[in-house]
Amino acid sequence: MRVMMEDESENIRAVWHENGKVRMIDQRLLPQEFRIIDLTDYLQVAECIKNMTVRGAPSIGAAAAYGMALAAEGGVDLDRAASVLKGTRPTAYDLFYAVDNMIISLERGDDPMEAASKYADRVIERCQLIGKYGATLIQEGAHIMTHCNAGALATVDVGTALAPIRTAWNAGKHIFVYVSETRPRLQGMKLTAWELYNEGIPHAIIVDGASGHFMRKGVDMILVGADRIASNGDFANKIGTFDKAVLANELGIPFYVCAPISTFDFSIPTGDHIVIEDRKEEEVTMIGNIRLAPGESAALNPSFDMTPAKYVTGFITEAGVLRPSEIGRVRRVKLQEAGEI
Amino acid sequence: MRVMMEDESENIRAVWHENGKVRMIDQRLLPQEFRIIDLTDYLQVAECIKNMTVRGAPSIGAAAAYGMALAAEGGVDLDRAASVLKGTRPTAYDLFYAVDNMIISLERGDDPMEAASKYADRVIERCQLIGKYGATLIQEGAHIMTHCNAGALATVDVGTALAPIRTAWNAGKHIFVYVSETRPRLQGMKLTAWELYNEGIPHAIIVDGASGHFMRKGVDMILVGADRIASNGDFANKIGTFDKAVLANELGIPFYVCAPISTFDFSIPTGDHIVIEDRKEEEVTMIGNIRLAPGESAALNPSFDMTPAKYVTGFITEAGVLRPSEIGRVRRVKLQEAGEI
Repeated sequence: MRVMMEDESENIRAVWHENGKVRMIDQRLLPQEFRIIDLTDYLQVAECIKNMTVRGAPSIGAAAAYGMALAAEGGVDLDRAASVLKGTRPTAYDLFYAVDNMIISLERGDDPMEAASKYADRVIERCQLIGKYGATLIQEGAHIMTHCNAGALATVDVGTALAPIRTAWNAGKHIFVYVSETRPRLQGMKLTAWELYNEGIPHAIIVDGASGHFMRKGVDMILVGADRIASNGDFANKIGTFDKAVLANELGIPFYVCAPISTFDFSIPTGDHIVIEDRKEEEVTMIGNIRLAPGESAALNPSFDMTPAKYVTGFITEAGVLRPSEIGRVRRVKLQEAGEI
Repeated sequence: MRVMMEDESENIRAVWHENGKVRMIDQRLLPQEFRIIDLTDYLQVAECIKNMTVRGAPSIGAAAAYGMALAAEGGVDLDRAASVLKGTRPTAYDLFYAVDNMIISLERGDDPMEAASKYADRVIERCQLIGKYGATLIQEGAHIMTHCNAGALATVDVGTALAPIRTAWNAGKHIFVYVSETRPRLQGMKLTAWELYNEGIPHAIIVDGASGHFMRKGVDMILVGADRIASNGDFANKIGTFDKAVLANELGIPFYVCAPISTFDFSIPTGDHIVIEDRKEEEVTMIGNIRLAPGESAALNPSFDMTPAKYVTGFITEAGVLRPSEIGRVRRVKLQEAGEI
């Protein structure tokens, strides 16, 4: 991704390997501070996934792959490392996919860091294809709404939902992006707006509750990412996604889910089997150290919601744009990649 | 409303008259600080409406009535005072209704403060009737969702959307309230939760984007207030209301608008004629003095949205519970009150 630093722009990834260390952007500090941290132990990686230094399903997957590589290099029992890394967050499927993928690579004797870097590179290649296929759906002058951050920060580089936006913009299309701020952690306002600013793509931040208002005023399409997609196309994504899907359906606005095959979980038939992470209520009731709510009031803080497949116009994947009924094609790509067919 | 103060509870209004002064709770400081301010000039009242020291359509109306009384007592030209007060905020119809109502009273020679207090008392009586009619719709064990603050703070006392909740609770029904926080100014988290805490009514704060998630998990009804209702039942309310209405409709959950007749604007045929106030973008991009957004990103901040009548199950008014097609009954009550029929 392009990052503006002291009036110079630099190309950088959300997570990468350099001189024996795993490096990542501390996403909790953006956009106020741009800090890169170095990790040398898989337990540090696990902590960074848990505390959301790194977030976004594909980036979590890549971070976990690097975590497995650090564990292998450090002589840590791989089952133990896999169990710790898988225990960090429950919803994003890429986490589980990446760890299992690394175990296969390591068991066949691949170099740990090379295998992890290859995994991260594959994530980027997939995002580039998502950008290519998705951009064909974006009309000149389109007003696009997105939610949370499904950009380069969430996906090592390029993005899932932001990939078609970047590709269309770079191809010279004039577009405008409504960035819904995404409470409670404000990844839309803090991360997506920052990425769009760095690329010069016109955008405006709105509160999540203004989604319907602006959709009725004129939104041409909705692009979101996903944390886990079930066999039937039901999917989990950041809390607030379901609301947008229902509104888009009611107002006749195309609603696309952008995700690589690592996000598809064919082991579950429907979205009802997806575990939704509940996070601590202070994410809602406090901003920094300031308590906003009455001291005696509790909050409920599900981090994700589940959107039934019937609200999805299409899945934009590296295997093309698929209707919910067509996602069996993703399964075949996945099995081919695993060498199972 | 009942307010907990140093472990004692006290009954208080959002705005009232005492010893020649107009007094109000500074709603911008809640729930962290409970401060009552004194006003002696209608221009101070206008400023307090504008800067949201007092907010909520019926409370704005009562404040404006007191403002007109202060102007009359101070010998200010009434047309001038009316114009200043009406110019403070564009959307809440009660503001315009109250000012016109006061002009009629003052022109026929009523005592200014008595007339204003009578106006405020009538608001409370109406809210009590809204509570009585609305409570009949609330089942034992009901899970109710509300938005923003349509409680005592917004309506001098009792509330509109919170009136049926208070009445049902006081009648011994076990209920639970989902309070959507209501970005950008968080009146749900800061004011509604505070009111519910003061009355001991079980509740939890959620982010606005979690509305659909919890509706699908089990919400029995939605109760919201209104800022202006058009002749056909389209209505404006706090941004985020339209999203909830569409979700409720999709999920088969009854959606009620609670409002006194002072909120009905029969001079406009549909909601498309309602002026939606845009407020400054810093309400979205900053919390206190802390900027959350990238410095270069703009925000759009409409304070209200418009919900078409087709999404409304019923209007809970002092004239009973009415379907959108029945709101002509409100018009007759209003004309009777004005002595026109």
